[in-house]
Formats: sequence, C-alpha cells, structure tokens
Amino acid sequence: MTTPGSLGTPVDFYFDFSSPYGYVASAIADETEKRIGRPLTWRPMLLGPVFKLNGAQPLTNVPMKGEYSKRDFVRTARLHKVPFTQPDKFPINTVAAARAFYWVQDQDPVKARALAKALYRAYFAENRDISAPETLLEVARSIGVDGEALAKALEDPALKERTRREVDAAIAAGVFGSPFFIADGEPFWGVDRVPMLEDWIRTGGW
Amino acid sequence: MTTPGSLGTPVDFYFDFSSPYGYVASAIADETEKRIGRPLTWRPMLLGPVFKLNGAQPLTNVPMKGEYSKRDFVRTARLHKVPFTQPDKFPINTVAAARAFYWVQDQDPVKARALAKALYRAYFAENRDISAPETLLEVARSIGVDGEALAKALEDPALKERTRREVDAAIAAGVFGSPFFIADGEPFWGVDRVPMLEDWIRTGGW
Repeated sequence: MTTPGSLGTPVDFYFDFSSPYGYVASAIADETEKRIGRPLTWRPMLLGPVFKLNGAQPLTNVPMKGEYSKRDFVRTARLHKVPFTQPDKFPINTVAAARAFYWVQDQDPVKARALAKALYRAYFAENRDISAPETLLEVARSIGVDGEALAKALEDPALKERTRREVDAAIAAGVFGSPFFIADGEPFWGVDRVPMLEDWIRTGGW
Repeated sequence: MTTPGSLGTPVDFYFDFSSPYGYVASAIADETEKRIGRPLTWRPMLLGPVFKLNGAQPLTNVPMKGEYSKRDFVRTARLHKVPFTQPDKFPINTVAAARAFYWVQDQDPVKARALAKALYRAYFAENRDISAPETLLEVARSIGVDGEALAKALEDPALKERTRREVDAAIAAGVFGSPFFIADGEPFWGVDRVPMLEDWIRTGGW
C-alpha cells in the first residue's frame, strides 16, 4: 500500500544511452509506469565518470562477465520482446546524446522522451552510431526537433554545464549503473529489478 | 519448444554457500524445477578462487554497489517470500560446507540437497556461522547425517580433492558468480535470471 500522499510521486529513471539494459528499460518504460502506478522522470546520465570514481569498467570488458553479458543483452531484449542488435561500435561516448535530451527536455518533456526512445532504437536496433553528430541530429530531426537549433545548442557552454549538473546529481544520488531507478529514496539497479520495484511500491516500501 | 531428446535434461545449478542470492535460489529451487520442466543438479562451488582469477571481490566490498547490495539481498528474499537476515559474519569460508555436500551427495543425492537447504537456512535465516565446524556438523546431524563420520570425512584428502575438482570444473565451465545455471551449455547468472532461463527453455533456446 502506498500512503495517499505518495500516490503518483515520480520515480527517477536514470540511464546511459550506451547501455543495452537502459535501452530495454526505455522500451518498456510506458508499461513500467502502468505496472508501478507512478510516472517515470527520465534522467540520462554518463557511466564514464561513475566508473572513474569507483574503479569499474564497461561490463563487456570485465573478465568472464564480458562474454557472458553479450549473450545476456540479447536474451534480455528477447525476454521483453524488444528488437536488439549488438552495435558494431560499443560502448560509445553519449555526452552529446544526453545534452540533446536535456535541451529538448527544457522545451518539451514529451518530445524529450520520444527523442530518448528514438536515439536508443537507432543505436541498439538499427546499429547507428549516435555518438556521430550527424546521426544524432538526423535522429532528432526524425521526431520533429529543429536540427539547426540543436546543433547550435550542443556548442553552448550553458547546456554543457546543465548536463554536467545532471550527471553530478545522479552520482550524488548514488547512481552507479544503468538503468537505475530511485523511488522515494530507494535505489533499484537494472531492468531486471522492475518486478522488484513494482513489488516494493505495491507493498508499501520497507 | 524443447526437442524431444532434451526434455528433462538436467540444468546445472552452481552456488556458493556464502551467497545470499544463491540462498534464495536454493529456497525456490523446487519451484524453479517445476517452472523450467527440468531437474536441477546442485553443484556447490567457491567464489574465492574465481575472484582470484578474474580480479573480482565480494559484492559487499565493491564501491557503491556494496551498500546497495545489502538492501538488494533483503528485497530479493522478500520478493521470493524467503526468510532472510544478513549474517553478522559475512562473507565466510564455505569450503567445509561444499565438502560436506559432496560427501553426502556421493551416498544420497536427496539428502545432499536437504543438507544444502539446511546449511543455507542456518546461515541466512538463523545467523549461524556455518564456517564453524561444530555448527556445520550440528546442521548436518539435524537432517540425519552421521556427524562423526562426516567429521572424519572432512579431514580426508580424497574428499578435499573431490571438492577441488568440482570447483575447477565449475570455473572451466565459465561459472563466475552465484547462483549460476547452465542449461544445454547456455549460462544464466543470478536468481533474477530464473524467468529468463524459463523463457529460454520454453522457447527452445537460441
């Protein structure tokens, strides 16, 4: 049971655009909102600075886990009926994608969510390298974003600073992986934790 | 769909007695067998040698993930309706527990499974230190194992060698975590992968 006051309180949904599990989480995000009875606040972040802080590295580079994870990406996508192709270039730098998201977000949150889904799909279903500026702009244009204005904004120090603040805030909140959900201060790491998040909210937290 | 020949082929179930997620997997193992339509072959192993090989460390020692994992242990147990208390001494050396399992296994596989469940319960539900020889023997006696004979066997170089071979075989099979399932050569890591294992078997593998 949720207390009346907390009903509908948003759950933070953190992700890195280079994360296969984040992609699957984005693809099932609408369904997740229905399951948990709460809206998700989408918050792209960057795993690079987190890994620098805690000495971790991209999953696919970790001994034994690396080879395993490549099978697990495919099976996770299949389990959730989400199209998936391991991108040729992986992982990629996703700072521009995150900046694009926050720029659109400040104008139109609904469109920002559509952009995030489109970027993830382009990378993980269509094998397009969204770290390349022209591809990023192409995907943005395809969902109705003004490409010229976005290209200009991506060079704006204010947007860089805005994105850096978001990433810092994610790290300060304890985010160390992708996807990562925080509900009423409680952290849930991984798309495999959505059933647990649902259970936790349904049964009233601790 | 499974091919007729593979129907009922056992799935290897690897675990370390010091692993909270392995404990939860042991507690739902009977239900898991029903869900996947295959018997599980229980194979205690040791994470210590694996971590030495791949440079990993106990989850609770990993920066950021460590604190998180302690919450996740409790929530995972709760999700599966399994009693859980974080043991005061954690992690522990589980080589004696693994040896005891294989010794009983060679005489009575059904009793070995009962021993594994009892050891896990003692450690993770009753906060009893199963690395202490007297506790290990007490738990074994409680399910009808001859304690004196077991105490003697635990000193036997042949049993030590038998257990070492099992651990080596697990590592050779690519096991790097607990619990770890291998079905027809396909690896699944984590109690959170049971639904995926079920889906994978039901839909006929790759």
